[in-house]
Amino acid sequence: MPLPQPPLPEPAHPTVDSMLSRRFGKEVANYFSGSPLNRVSFLRPDSTFLSTALVHPSTTFVLFNNLEPLISSPSALATATFSDVKSIIGDSPFGKSEEDVIKEYNSSLYIPQIVFLGLDERKEGFVYKDHYKGQPWFAVDVTPKSSVTDSAGKLIEGLKAKGLEFSKGRMHLSLPAQEAAIYAEARHLLDWNARNPFCASCGYPTLSVNAGFKRTCPPRDIAPSVQSPDRPPCATRTGISNLCFPRTDPTVIMAVVSADGQRILLGRQKRWPQYWYSTLAGFLEPAESVEEAVRREVWEESGIHLGRVVIHSTQPWPYPANLMIGAVGQAIPGGEEVHLGHDAELEDAKWFTAEEVREALRVGTSGLGEEPGPDYRQGGLRLPPATAIAHQLMSAVVNGFASGTPMI
Amino acid sequence: MPLPQPPLPEPAHPTVDSMLSRRFGKEVANYFSGSPLNRVSFLRPDSTFLSTALVHPSTTFVLFNNLEPLISSPSALATATFSDVKSIIGDSPFGKSEEDVIKEYNSSLYIPQIVFLGLDERKEGFVYKDHYKGQPWFAVDVTPKSSVTDSAGKLIEGLKAKGLEFSKGRMHLSLPAQEAAIYAEARHLLDWNARNPFCASCGYPTLSVNAGFKRTCPPRDIAPSVQSPDRPPCATRTGISNLCFPRTDPTVIMAVVSADGQRILLGRQKRWPQYWYSTLAGFLEPAESVEEAVRREVWEESGIHLGRVVIHSTQPWPYPANLMIGAVGQAIPGGEEVHLGHDAELEDAKWFTAEEVREALRVGTSGLGEEPGPDYRQGGLRLPPATAIAHQLMSAVVNGFASGTPMI
Ligand SMILES: [Zn+2]
Ligand SMILES: [Zn+2]
Repeated sequence: MPLPQPPLPEPAHPTVDSMLSRRFGKEVANYFSGSPLNRVSFLRPDSTFLSTALVHPSTTFVLFNNLEPLISSPSALATATFSDVKSIIGDSPFGKSEEDVIKEYNSSLYIPQIVFLGLDERKEGFVYKDHYKGQPWFAVDVTPKSSVTDSAGKLIEGLKAKGLEFSKGRMHLSLPAQEAAIYAEARHLLDWNARNPFCASCGYPTLSVNAGFKRTCPPRDIAPSVQSPDRPPCATRTGISNLCFPRTDPTVIMAVVSADGQRILLGRQKRWPQYWYSTLAGFLEPAESVEEAVRREVWEESGIHLGRVVIHSTQPWPYPANLMIGAVGQAIPGGEEVHLGHDAELEDAKWFTAEEVREALRVGTSGLGEEPGPDYRQGGLRLPPATAIAHQLMSAVVNGFASGTPMI
Repeated sequence: MPLPQPPLPEPAHPTVDSMLSRRFGKEVANYFSGSPLNRVSFLRPDSTFLSTALVHPSTTFVLFNNLEPLISSPSALATATFSDVKSIIGDSPFGKSEEDVIKEYNSSLYIPQIVFLGLDERKEGFVYKDHYKGQPWFAVDVTPKSSVTDSAGKLIEGLKAKGLEFSKGRMHLSLPAQEAAIYAEARHLLDWNARNPFCASCGYPTLSVNAGFKRTCPPRDIAPSVQSPDRPPCATRTGISNLCFPRTDPTVIMAVVSADGQRILLGRQKRWPQYWYSTLAGFLEPAESVEEAVRREVWEESGIHLGRVVIHSTQPWPYPANLMIGAVGQAIPGGEEVHLGHDAELEDAKWFTAEEVREALRVGTSGLGEEPGPDYRQGGLRLPPATAIAHQLMSAVVNGFASGTPMI
């Protein structure tokens, strides 16, 4: 049984007619984008703002246990209030300035991670400095561990008694677009903080600041177990270092069109279900443009030589931290022979007609691990669902993205 | 005096006519892209390949001292041979399999960083497994330190005696496009390895593998100073971890067009020369699409509200590790009032007519810290040079990117 597919995000201002939309068409908004929150990123170091926002009656919390979000069903995030999480994060976790927090750093204390996600400007109530309005959203890590083992365990019991649960596995999440975007932001930041407890420059433990959007390597640590509170110099303290900021890995994903424009190249990995194919994809490498990465990956995985590459749209992907940059590339004449021998990533790559792809987009799509719909006939091409940018790229191509007119 | 500006890279296959190039125009290739090397990334774990490539007579080395490249002039990288660097890297740095290198890991030994950059397929000579041909390129860190202080010092003296030098400061580099792309790849990887000697997951020292493209957290360390050779478990050993791979931070940079298409928004930072403006730019945040990041940054820095955003081209930027994603965005009607109060990043942001921008692209461009050309008149708008993607975005807009026809 296919799960019901969640609706996709609305493109920005779809009703505004502009030169750009007349020339390039309506913007394609991919799943996990389309957040309703204004991140007001410049307010994150402001402990007065954070303290006030944290305790406003409208303020909403999304909770995670071992990176699994609290849900009321696979298609709905559950939310909590400040009084629910107070036993975990304390009365006033943003009560001190960052300067003071860094000065008093003690690596032996466990501080549950809090992330400020943004303001939902559609909801009235909270106002800061007249200018910044909306319902504040935070994420809190309520994993029962260290000093919060008991309090978090108790909170989780209470939530379960209310019929809520922490989602097991992302395969079964099908959140509405705006909730999916909020979930993606929260998960990306909680994951990054959890994976990076140590400074890659000096090896010492680091401290979360900027409401979850930065980690800093304090010059002193007053933990009793530490031999000397003063730490050796660290390069991250003497200049701006990207190690302090959340990491997002750019990846490229591309619909490849034949030189004559009539066929589309798709590939499959061994572990996928039978008949399932998708667009090729891979990580952008250091000092590559996106256009170069697309050509390199396509050659490495399939042997095809591409000419012109055009970027179509992008999708944040929170498992754990990717930006998928979707492109369409066209093979050069004479460069269309498939060769799988360079890299061993794909089990198969081959050319499909636009008509085969169009039909499969109609009847053969589903999430991995689900069955396609009732019109699918065994042996036909299977493709990813509309929430995948791969699907959007294939749709764009069969609907005439490359040529400006439908391909068939 | 303006430095001579280096020529830009050639777009891929500019002579191939395709549906994509007919619809979207010729691909814009930005400075630091356009590498002539095939990275054959799948061969990096292959120590037989690396050992053979390292000592081939055609093999070429670019050398770095404290991340500064060896040059023969500001517009030419200098290269070295295996016999030049043998005293630093040893006779056979890839003589053992990675498995064995990890088994014998000793954190007290200093290993100068070597990076395999790729094969220049235009040059004949080296062949591997019949299929992979071309002149091999490597980068080597020859900074005099630790166990190579003397040998590296001597090598550097010899190079200086030949009239070569290590470039002081990137401001004075104006390499030809293909050398710039090779330099960018080398610098990005040397910088990443140098900044990340410790595991961010467990805090222990890590080891470079995959010819500079991966760092691994070995389970054992036989250094004499270490209390026990067996290390505690590390999460990077039990699954694929992005912490093991080079980091590239996606940034967005955007030409903003007014709702009527007649004006372009530019901003300036306080530290820039008088009259100098550029496009707005900023880091992509976790779980944002590029299109969302463009709208957020433009609103945070200037107060302008954007509708449709289209991605134009991309540029790798090696100081230290960015991918600049260049876009054009159009303001929505009624969303064009400049407000600098949100974020304090810009000293000014304002609307210029397309004609002002067009004129400044003709007479007012130069590198930061250089003077504009002889036709520039004091008080006129100054803009970045053609090697900056900001310049390419402004050019695209005044040449009709948004409308399909010239704006004026
Ligand atoms: Zn540090
Ligand atoms: Zn580790």
